[in-house]
Amino acid sequence: MLESTVSSNSVLLVGAGNLATSLGVALCGAGIDVAGVWSRTEESARALGERLGTFYSCDMNALPQADVVIVSVADEALPQVLSSVATLFPSSLIAHTAGSISMDALREAGCSRYGVFYPMQTFSRLRIVDFSTVSTFVEGCDKAATETLRFIASELRGKVYDATSEQRRYLHLAAVFACNFPNALYAMSAELLRRNGLPFEAMLPLIDETAAKVHSLHPKEAQTGPARRGDEAVMQSQRSLLDEELLSVYNMLSDYILKNR
Amino acid sequence: MLESTVSSNSVLLVGAGNLATSLGVALCGAGIDVAGVWSRTEESARALGERLGTFYSCDMNALPQADVVIVSVADEALPQVLSSVATLFPSSLIAHTAGSISMDALREAGCSRYGVFYPMQTFSRLRIVDFSTVSTFVEGCDKAATETLRFIASELRGKVYDATSEQRRYLHLAAVFACNFPNALYAMSAELLRRNGLPFEAMLPLIDETAAKVHSLHPKEAQTGPARRGDEAVMQSQRSLLDEELLSVYNMLSDYILKNR
Repeated sequence: MLESTVSSNSVLLVGAGNLATSLGVALCGAGIDVAGVWSRTEESARALGERLGTFYSCDMNALPQADVVIVSVADEALPQVLSSVATLFPSSLIAHTAGSISMDALREAGCSRYGVFYPMQTFSRLRIVDFSTVSTFVEGCDKAATETLRFIASELRGKVYDATSEQRRYLHLAAVFACNFPNALYAMSAELLRRNGLPFEAMLPLIDETAAKVHSLHPKEAQTGPARRGDEAVMQSQRSLLDEELLSVYNMLSDYILKNR
Repeated sequence: MLESTVSSNSVLLVGAGNLATSLGVALCGAGIDVAGVWSRTEESARALGERLGTFYSCDMNALPQADVVIVSVADEALPQVLSSVATLFPSSLIAHTAGSISMDALREAGCSRYGVFYPMQTFSRLRIVDFSTVSTFVEGCDKAATETLRFIASELRGKVYDATSEQRRYLHLAAVFACNFPNALYAMSAELLRRNGLPFEAMLPLIDETAAKVHSLHPKEAQTGPARRGDEAVMQSQRSLLDEELLSVYNMLSDYILKNR
């Protein structure tokens, strides 16, 4: 009974950035009706609207009504965009996708039925993410809202978890440590290689194995390298190759590994 | 002509640690004759010898002669082990596997035919690495030595590159940034989740995608997260969740991302 109700959901995407782009492609791929796309600029609204073959506008008034509105905009724009959405779509279930913003922000913006739909993944417009590989964390203002968000997430075929706003803050923080910071270290590695005429491509098998390893070993067991071995001679030799900025990073992370081995 | 000569290589493994274990399994899998295994302790010599179904001993005098001796021991033990190997196997091609140690160390230890065989990967005894995914960097004291090492590496079906001792130092350093440090960040992420009763497993799709992304985007283009967006509100909120140790890491890496975006 519940399924037949929620499966008829139509969705509006408010925002057309990195996350909204992959999410829109996944929703359409799952046969969910994306009834319209809004973005602040005509250009980005059109890019995503045309990609999804759906109505788009930079004028929120022009959008059709829908069962669910998913708002995925920059955090600093969120309060204002949410209050426009709350006014224009009073009978919709309204959800935001921001890891670090509490569900309360939706109530405070005047939404009456609301929730959070947080796909924990790294989204870039240049690369469409397959949602079957995404963990999505949902939270609803009531049981029906939670069920609807859970249903949409499960239609995208990834894993679905419930998470409170407080848990989501920690998830987002943990994601910064598991994704954004490792990527910054890849960038440092690429820079070291570039300066010495070596191909970053040679690092890819190592990067892949490092990621694959923590599927079967805890990161503490998976740790290798000079700091893990307490190999001061290698560390001293490596320090001599680094400029001041990378040396600080090297020392801080090596100290962490030494202390926690 | 060269191939038919080198393809008859027999190999001794001196050392039975993380790297030697995966290398030994790969050599046997490629049909290369591993004629014996030595380790400082009887116990670890036996573990690897039995695994490979080959002769093992903790007495180096007991090992048979072989065409190639691959020495894979802790860096600080290397000079002494190399000089024993040079004395006992005067007609073998002797190679070490250490990223940060120059090829000269082999000459200085008294080896007459020598080289370096550096498989750039993260090796743990608990997880056997598939060498078809490994980039191996080789360097020989002369053309014939280089050819032999290149041949052995190519038999393992991974990518093979030539690298000088100086280039290898930078490769090893870049590997620390691309592998050991990201793994330390996974450990921090796991710790943050553990403290808040959340499963590290939920991070795995994110970790995988972060690694997969840099196959098609440069790490600078692939960068996402609050620091990449310059989102001070989220960063401030995240800082408030961290203890002193993780806060220093957070600030240093966020500053790097802010400066390099």
